Amino acid sequence: AIVAAAASLFAPGPLAGRHVLITAGPTREYLDPVRFISNPSTGKMGLALAEAARGMGAKVTVVLGPVGAVERSGYEVVDVVSAEDMAREVLARVDEVDCFIASAAVSDWKPETRAAQKVKKSEGPEALTLVRTPDVLAEASRRVSGREKRPVLVGFAAETQRVVEYARDKLERKGLDAIVANDVTAPGAGFGVDTNQVTVLTRDGKQRELSGTKREVARSILGLIQELLPPRP
Amino acid sequence: AIVAAAASLFAPGPLAGRHVLITAGPTREYLDPVRFISNPSTGKMGLALAEAARGMGAKVTVVLGPVGAVERSGYEVVDVVSAEDMAREVLARVDEVDCFIASAAVSDWKPETRAAQKVKKSEGPEALTLVRTPDVLAEASRRVSGREKRPVLVGFAAETQRVVEYARDKLERKGLDAIVANDVTAPGAGFGVDTNQVTVLTRDGKQRELSGTKREVARSILGLIQELLPPRP
Repeated sequence: AIVAAAASLFAPGPLAGRHVLITAGPTREYLDPVRFISNPSTGKMGLALAEAARGMGAKVTVVLGPVGAVERSGYEVVDVVSAEDMAREVLARVDEVDCFIASAAVSDWKPETRAAQKVKKSEGPEALTLVRTPDVLAEASRRVSGREKRPVLVGFAAETQRVVEYARDKLERKGLDAIVANDVTAPGAGFGVDTNQVTVLTRDGKQRELSGTKREVARSILGLIQELLPPRP
Repeated sequence: AIVAAAASLFAPGPLAGRHVLITAGPTREYLDPVRFISNPSTGKMGLALAEAARGMGAKVTVVLGPVGAVERSGYEVVDVVSAEDMAREVLARVDEVDCFIASAAVSDWKPETRAAQKVKKSEGPEALTLVRTPDVLAEASRRVSGREKRPVLVGFAAETQRVVEYARDKLERKGLDAIVANDVTAPGAGFGVDTNQVTVLTRDGKQRELSGTKREVARSILGLIQELLPPRP
């Protein structure tokens, strides 16, 4: 980490002077003090993006869901638990960044209520009512839409079928510049593993396949993002 | 680990010749390929018990829920995901062990159905029907009850209120020899942290308070268990 930090002092890199905001990891939506709805995201892809962006000279802020102990040097980390926490921290920052990469696996639903005490088995619940959480990326996009200096917006689509179709729809619906789509059930891709294979779709209709370690895929994604950034003032 | 293994060759320890089965970590109950109900257990307490039992000369088998990368040398680890997986692996082994310590935070409910594909946001579910999972410890207790050579059964009770009362009830209802109760909302206790403070209740009505690092607490718990084991044949 010291070597990397020292190196960055001498090689400003293609993203020098840019601020990149990244969400990573899962969110947890608690139904009582000890139970939650979540997903298997480990934050590896998002943290690889943070590392790559830092390596290219960017200032990096990661809004990070609960992933346990991870390397977090060289960039600012804002720890969050729920989708609501994540939305709040992102919306407080998205106006001022050059790029927002939403790689977190945000829970789409949360329990309607959160019990103050651990719910005993005998009491239920047998039916859990779920309500939608804030859509972090869509809200961020709405917030910056129409601005003169609008950050490049990059989404992720973790799908198990019709991956490219769903991703293209999401790109258009949320007003994104690019979306990184992957089939999380494919071997060597998705949650927890160190490799990934993704399809990057951009607003101009182009489609690129990337595969390799998450670190390699992260560098390639940031190379594509770099092309989408407006020229420096 | 090598030093510990070498030491155990020369000092058989008070649990030499005993086989201890331990469950540790959370379980995950999936509602579709990418979403689940779980809890914040990191397996630290259970793995500290495994380490302590091994240090006292026991043969140790850990049935371990999803906790990410953890030290797992010196004992057998059986990886599981759901409560059903955990119950199956425990019931396959509990007949042959001298002690079963159920320290895992097993999900009490699971979604009634598991969708084959990721459920799209627009489709729902807005109501999630939950059904009970197998009670691993109660099933293990039923299985061995009345046997001549019955393992010592130790439960855990993670509570947020009326801790000792709930734990005493659980000890009696499930036919346990001891139960380790803790208030998971107390500072320096419960999920994820390296320390714990617990109350150990035994069938004879005694109650002991233990606190310290999870490693220290683990050693003390095993010291109490050692007293409950029948003399060696």
